Amino acid sequence: MEIRKLIPKKKQGLVVVITGNGKGKTSSAMGMALRATGHEMKTCIIQFMKGDIYSGEWDGVTRLDGLVELTATGKGFCGIEGNPYPHKEHRANAQAAVELVLEKIDSGRYDMIILDEINNALELKLIDYEQLETILKKRPPHLHMILTGRSADPRVIEQADTVSQVNEIKHAYRKGIEPQPGVDY
Amino acid sequence: MEIRKLIPKKKQGLVVVITGNGKGKTSSAMGMALRATGHEMKTCIIQFMKGDIYSGEWDGVTRLDGLVELTATGKGFCGIEGNPYPHKEHRANAQAAVELVLEKIDSGRYDMIILDEINNALELKLIDYEQLETILKKRPPHLHMILTGRSADPRVIEQADTVSQVNEIKHAYRKGIEPQPGVDY
Repeated sequence: MEIRKLIPKKKQGLVVVITGNGKGKTSSAMGMALRATGHEMKTCIIQFMKGDIYSGEWDGVTRLDGLVELTATGKGFCGIEGNPYPHKEHRANAQAAVELVLEKIDSGRYDMIILDEINNALELKLIDYEQLETILKKRPPHLHMILTGRSADPRVIEQADTVSQVNEIKHAYRKGIEPQPGVDY
Repeated sequence: MEIRKLIPKKKQGLVVVITGNGKGKTSSAMGMALRATGHEMKTCIIQFMKGDIYSGEWDGVTRLDGLVELTATGKGFCGIEGNPYPHKEHRANAQAAVELVLEKIDSGRYDMIILDEINNALELKLIDYEQLETILKKRPPHLHMILTGRSADPRVIEQADTVSQVNEIKHAYRKGIEPQPGVDY
């Protein structure tokens, strides 16, 4: 059997939104970063809100021969039980993250930029819709942009090319199973 | 800010099902494999049905310092337009894949086994439910098992710990955009 290699007649950057309340949104974005390395493509991952709890992808991406960079910019999930930081501090971090994203786009160094949890950051008013609009408008046509997080704004869904809604059918934590390394973080 | 490192009091393997018609199921599984390498965990990926068209994850995983193995066992999506192989041949490949999965479980070498597109393979009768049951029964308690593909069997969902349904809200191909490297394959 011969293995076919697809080559699109027209290469173009896509805006992909992965939203919903189920497990697998960030995982899905990380999988695209991994897949992209098979095509020698470069990816930049900016994680909003995340940064206070270690997650395996932080070290995982460092194995990918310099093709994937990841920056976790946050202080955890704003407003959830146990998170000690006020909204103002979360917002300051997210605002700095927006600046970083704009710089990364300007650098022209990437084929894919992943904005992990940005939907959440918008929902929680850590960034403003206008800022996300600026990011999307700045995206050059060849650049893929992947936006993850619950509760994607309908205006973002409108502008996206591909949108998936990941719904929870069940989740291990509801049975009292703690988060497990590799699967959950 | 101190970064917390979660360590579950009880480590346990999870059965995770990622199903639905939307984009991001295989990506999600690949992301878990990448994340697992951050914890020095070993993953084995067996792709059912896939194997006729190059996908970036095939080379992507070879960058992960030997922690992730991937075998694409198939001849493409059985029954879709343009696929020239009869059901019998697809089934023979999937049957060989089941044997491989059982060997991989027996080897005891992995922390995570990903059965990519196995839900589809079952739906299309390339494997029998009893075979999938045998696989799930053979799973040792520490081993994570990730099952992807549309139309997961309700009996599999019943046995799983975490199940996500990825629904298509929109997809670029419906606008006539060809599959793009990195994002789609």
